[in-house]
Amino acid sequence: MQGNGVYLDYAATSPLDERVLQAMLPYLREPAGNPSSLHSFGASASEAIEEARGKVAAMIGASPEEVIFTSGGTESDNLGVLGLARSDPGKRHVVVSPVEHAAVRECIAGLERDGYEISRLTVDGYGMVDPGDVERALRPDTALVAVMWANNEVGTVEPVEEIARVCAERGVPLHVDAVQAAGRLPMDTGRVPLSTLALSSHKLYGPQGVGALYVREGVRLEPVVHGGGQERGLRSGTENVAGIVGFGEAARLAGLEREQRVRHERELRDLLIAGVSEIPGVHLRGHPEERLPNNVHLTVEGVESESLVLMLDALGYAIGRGSACASSGHKASPVLLAMGITEEEAFSAVRVTVGKDTSRDDVSGFVGAFREAVERLRELSPVRVR
Amino acid sequence: MQGNGVYLDYAATSPLDERVLQAMLPYLREPAGNPSSLHSFGASASEAIEEARGKVAAMIGASPEEVIFTSGGTESDNLGVLGLARSDPGKRHVVVSPVEHAAVRECIAGLERDGYEISRLTVDGYGMVDPGDVERALRPDTALVAVMWANNEVGTVEPVEEIARVCAERGVPLHVDAVQAAGRLPMDTGRVPLSTLALSSHKLYGPQGVGALYVREGVRLEPVVHGGGQERGLRSGTENVAGIVGFGEAARLAGLEREQRVRHERELRDLLIAGVSEIPGVHLRGHPEERLPNNVHLTVEGVESESLVLMLDALGYAIGRGSACASSGHKASPVLLAMGITEEEAFSAVRVTVGKDTSRDDVSGFVGAFREAVERLRELSPVRVR
Repeated sequence: MQGNGVYLDYAATSPLDERVLQAMLPYLREPAGNPSSLHSFGASASEAIEEARGKVAAMIGASPEEVIFTSGGTESDNLGVLGLARSDPGKRHVVVSPVEHAAVRECIAGLERDGYEISRLTVDGYGMVDPGDVERALRPDTALVAVMWANNEVGTVEPVEEIARVCAERGVPLHVDAVQAAGRLPMDTGRVPLSTLALSSHKLYGPQGVGALYVREGVRLEPVVHGGGQERGLRSGTENVAGIVGFGEAARLAGLEREQRVRHERELRDLLIAGVSEIPGVHLRGHPEERLPNNVHLTVEGVESESLVLMLDALGYAIGRGSACASSGHKASPVLLAMGITEEEAFSAVRVTVGKDTSRDDVSGFVGAFREAVERLRELSPVRVR
Repeated sequence: MQGNGVYLDYAATSPLDERVLQAMLPYLREPAGNPSSLHSFGASASEAIEEARGKVAAMIGASPEEVIFTSGGTESDNLGVLGLARSDPGKRHVVVSPVEHAAVRECIAGLERDGYEISRLTVDGYGMVDPGDVERALRPDTALVAVMWANNEVGTVEPVEEIARVCAERGVPLHVDAVQAAGRLPMDTGRVPLSTLALSSHKLYGPQGVGALYVREGVRLEPVVHGGGQERGLRSGTENVAGIVGFGEAARLAGLEREQRVRHERELRDLLIAGVSEIPGVHLRGHPEERLPNNVHLTVEGVESESLVLMLDALGYAIGRGSACASSGHKASPVLLAMGITEEEAFSAVRVTVGKDTSRDDVSGFVGAFREAVERLRELSPVRVR
């Protein structure tokens, strides 16, 4: 499939790496076996899963037993947040950043409806959490803290290492959504004493429909999906063998190629930022340095983001509105509002994310198209840009 | 992957149909797009999902809007059971059959821990529920009834149509696990007034890691996985586009070819039953007529099922122990115990399930190997078969 033009929405989903597809095909072409089965088909499926588990663990400096496969980043966030909260019914207080992905935000909202008390942190204008705020928010009855590694909309990287230290010192579990950060930022669970870490395959050139939750040894979780007791009882259901094999291979490649991918992405990102910054009324949002190497988040004065995305699509460039997952709603992104961005500005936000297959030509072509689209839309709009 | 020999464990997982793989490949080879994205890649992914939704709906006589895609049968059961129970907090009573799959059983156990009162039905020696028992168990505060369409272990088909009528007359929601029945039994949600119906892709030659829940129009559910609000808010998370496309194609083929597949399976099943029944001390379990067309469930006097499965694997035949999903535990199957089978007999249970690609030669070869394995194991065992 099967869109047209240049794809610059890698943060929404990334194309499957051809090498990953090749690793998956044998498990799609032959009876995959049910890993719970005793016979050789089952044993072979089970071995393939354990190999993939090792590869995902290696990417984040974990032991294989600390990796639980799930159906994706959203489910991993649900298992981390709800699993930690429900594992100790005596603790009914949660600390959360205001820039979390909807997968975490909606779990927290559910806990609030169930009577949990929620402390919502603030962020600065770049969307960054202050570890001191986390420390001040902790209580003896705090069930967990949730702060993401890097923000999916504006790309800001949070000080997770300091936050994890603060939480560990007080014995409070920390859940970290690393869906956008994994494979882009160095990530070592040996160094960062977090409790659970959510990962997604399709953000790093693996297949959609697969993810994982890192669960530090000794951390107790209640399962969210109940059944046959697969994945150490934490995630029941017949395993998606081919998908897991693909995720494993994608994680291995991400570990192997991370530095060169990041160099490439950063170069293109900075080229893109330099290009669009020449257009009047275009503002880069998120932290200028502490940001994902592939993320450009912009607000554009006098332009509505939906119109801009659609016009760029017509011009042959696929980019995202604020956040892909919030696209179906018609509310301003809570992330941008928490950063002090006005509702009007928020509705002008677009996200451009590059990837390992993006070229310099893609970027220079995009900058031209972006300028053209912005100018055309401003001509159509009665609002003047100062 | 990739085991050795003849695969006779279709109820655990079925090989991917080559035609299904061909339908999936375009969505694996090109950027799949995030269906929530506004641009053409997103629109194309979204269209592919809606086409698949129509195909799955057609297989069960439903409207496309009544189909919610999930990560598999287990998650579908969780969403049906927990979703129905949690949607009306005033109702705290649940009626459930004693032969449900672990995915339903463990959700019910969770509700019981949360203070729900559970009425567990009984079954006859074939594992069949009496609709009169369901009627007598209903109360004004019954949140839901859960009875599966056909049992995954012994293959017995339950009288769901009558049970659904009983529930509908009293206005009580009915959840039905149709993971094993779909594509094998005629299934029309227009005729059977159930509320939710769990389906799995990989049991009908589709990919692993995808499933669906049918949710009758007007039925209210609480989501189990929270986040970006995909699938009408009932199942958040970026959709597994290629997986969903594959499931759609598998459902279309199942609808188209059901009658010829069933004729083929039934013929081989009966040949297999006739062959193994000549061996002394081998007993067919489950209903002799009202059973899945591809299921043979046996208890074998004087033989331990694990040894039998492993020896048959060595002889080149892959079959299941009692139930694949319960394989990792070391408890007797609750399904068999509910049917009045003793614990000792239960530990001698094996499940042989054929599929559309099984041949007559596969079956006659299997019968010979089965006889050989049973005789060898009995020689090794001190227990005499009378």
